[in-house]
Amino acid sequence: MARINDNYLKLKAGYLFPEIGRRVNAFSQANPTAKIIRMGIGDVTEPLPPAIVEAMHKAVDEMAKRETFRGYGPEQGYAFLREKIARYEFTDRGCEVHADEIFVSDGSKCDTGNILDILAPGKENIIAVGDPVYPVYVDTNVMAGHTGDSNARGEYEGLVYLPMNAENGFKPALPSRKVDVIYLCYPNNPTGAVADRAALTEWVLYARENDALILFDAAYEAYINSPDIPHSIYEIPGARDVAIEFRSFSKSAGFTGTRCAYTIVPKTLTGTSSKGERIDLHRLWMRRHTTKYNGVPYIIQRGAEAAYSDAGREQVAELIRFYMANAAIIRGSLTGLGFEVYGGVHAPYVWVRTPNKMDSWSFFDKLLKECNVVITPGSGFGAAGEGYFRVSAFNSRENVEEAMRRITAPLK
Amino acid sequence: MARINDNYLKLKAGYLFPEIGRRVNAFSQANPTAKIIRMGIGDVTEPLPPAIVEAMHKAVDEMAKRETFRGYGPEQGYAFLREKIARYEFTDRGCEVHADEIFVSDGSKCDTGNILDILAPGKENIIAVGDPVYPVYVDTNVMAGHTGDSNARGEYEGLVYLPMNAENGFKPALPSRKVDVIYLCYPNNPTGAVADRAALTEWVLYARENDALILFDAAYEAYINSPDIPHSIYEIPGARDVAIEFRSFSKSAGFTGTRCAYTIVPKTLTGTSSKGERIDLHRLWMRRHTTKYNGVPYIIQRGAEAAYSDAGREQVAELIRFYMANAAIIRGSLTGLGFEVYGGVHAPYVWVRTPNKMDSWSFFDKLLKECNVVITPGSGFGAAGEGYFRVSAFNSRENVEEAMRRITAPLK
Repeated sequence: MARINDNYLKLKAGYLFPEIGRRVNAFSQANPTAKIIRMGIGDVTEPLPPAIVEAMHKAVDEMAKRETFRGYGPEQGYAFLREKIARYEFTDRGCEVHADEIFVSDGSKCDTGNILDILAPGKENIIAVGDPVYPVYVDTNVMAGHTGDSNARGEYEGLVYLPMNAENGFKPALPSRKVDVIYLCYPNNPTGAVADRAALTEWVLYARENDALILFDAAYEAYINSPDIPHSIYEIPGARDVAIEFRSFSKSAGFTGTRCAYTIVPKTLTGTSSKGERIDLHRLWMRRHTTKYNGVPYIIQRGAEAAYSDAGREQVAELIRFYMANAAIIRGSLTGLGFEVYGGVHAPYVWVRTPNKMDSWSFFDKLLKECNVVITPGSGFGAAGEGYFRVSAFNSRENVEEAMRRITAPLK
Repeated sequence: MARINDNYLKLKAGYLFPEIGRRVNAFSQANPTAKIIRMGIGDVTEPLPPAIVEAMHKAVDEMAKRETFRGYGPEQGYAFLREKIARYEFTDRGCEVHADEIFVSDGSKCDTGNILDILAPGKENIIAVGDPVYPVYVDTNVMAGHTGDSNARGEYEGLVYLPMNAENGFKPALPSRKVDVIYLCYPNNPTGAVADRAALTEWVLYARENDALILFDAAYEAYINSPDIPHSIYEIPGARDVAIEFRSFSKSAGFTGTRCAYTIVPKTLTGTSSKGERIDLHRLWMRRHTTKYNGVPYIIQRGAEAAYSDAGREQVAELIRFYMANAAIIRGSLTGLGFEVYGGVHAPYVWVRTPNKMDSWSFFDKLLKECNVVITPGSGFGAAGEGYFRVSAFNSRENVEEAMRRITAPLK
């Protein structure tokens, strides 16, 4: 008989955002006239930049003619896109990343999950994650059998949680036990915290000393607002030997519904086989990517490429400025109301303590009911997120201002 | 230290098509003036149908305006597309498949690999595959640790191979040992064979009796040329309890570079947990799909939807007729030369015995060198493919005719 993957049965009720969706839908059906403002899921709201739109129209036209039609492309992405990424994201910042170390994909969510395919199944690697944490890191490790069951706090046996909270300035301490794989996300989702050069250097040194692998999620690097904060882990010397980096067009160029991302696996990066041999991870990921994936649509890759034209770069920067002005409004408003406010300076997320030590889901429900505003409950990101909530700056100016007006009223 | 997935080390040299690519590139560099005709990889060559092009332009324009911009969509695909698929592909054929049993994705290659995520890791399921076989089925099982090492014939220990050859009319016998998971691909890649209602009914009965799961790959169903051949496994009574079906726009609407496919997981389908509980596979796949995937680009889903407009259906049918006319030319030509020819009637692939019992890769090299024509060596699809080669009908008429003229010369 066909046996299922029992690890799935360890997963808690639902992935966070579908659960939010269910609660919002239930409220909406019970209150059909309520004008709900969604500041929960980190989804962009502004249209695609004109340079990208123009490039996609052109690509659609190419697909309409036999002479310029494209069938299967290279699974790892077209060179025209990988070369621009290498130049504008890395070389121009003084980072060593080569075009053939870049794997274009349809999302960092997919890549951060799929990367586990090339790591040992079962519990041979000790995995460390931040807490709070983007739930996909945890759930995909559960699915892959890298954990035991979860406890009452929702923590899975076998995972090493690194708390990030106001008390430690959202800077997790190095693990007290030796770990083999470390997820880092900077600028951080959900807290909006960033890591400076010194903090990242500590992690790279830890990984080198402990032969650990860093999975560095930089999906929000475009929001960094200061030259002192690295955009890439590869700005740290020695990182090419210990880190994989995930990047995305979702939050920079507004691609959440258009789907394009990329992952860097340096050719200098290795892992260890059960026999103790050093194995090239680039080769393993290439095998995974070419066997289980077929590449991003040509049309979309042309759109992503246009984000690097002169006009595209200016238009993307303008999008970022727009969302960050939203973040400033949210920060200002909530701070003014006496909330304890973090993040939102180098990241499109504002991370806020709930008032009166209210638990996160209760605050979620209260805000939905009283203000018709959706935020993300901090506990949805892990036990250390309890007592916080995340406000996303991805919205129209009008909605941000209206939400801030509404939150003023019942909670001040 | 970070431990890698040792199962990857069991994989044979390279995925078939990259290996073909390497040989063709090497030949091409050594013979820069050779005009190579590629009839190897099954990649479409004709432009996207106008109805699809028009729909994608419209969708790009929607993405350019705030009012119609789309961010994250439902991971399983927009209802507008799933409802059209349910109606035109299933309901109109008298099959019970509901829109909420359809998961839109970016490729059947991805889905046939990823589906293993929800099945037990390790060797708890006995897996059967055809031989010859689409290599992705085998390689992804190796990666997932469902097999042992490979032998000199390239067969992996633990897999049950079901030979399909001229001797059994390309109709594999039911497995002599009990198996838990069975891959079926009809119309078949690479042999072009089809399964009639009686053959599929045997498989459904086998699966029901043995509590097995059928993974039915119907990526080529659009090429079926006779009302007696089922397009879907769900045309067989009882299949909803035992089968997952994979479908794609790649070969029907010409989406190999545009990327859209879908997978059916009926809500009536279950697997068994290690404790013997029956577990709903739809729920597991929904969890996998929503956690590790983010949906097909909105623009592409609108393109796929347009394949079901009146104009779109006629234009897709015209594409199929075009490629099948190519297949008829290939069949006719090679038959006329005395080759032993199979397939190419209900499938865009013609499967041919090599002359003089030549091995497949030698024939590949000979044809590349002497005729500058690329085919796919049968042995690349498995041990039972040795002594055959696959010719793809996906090409311009001009190239097909020119290739057939060239093959005539040195081999008649």
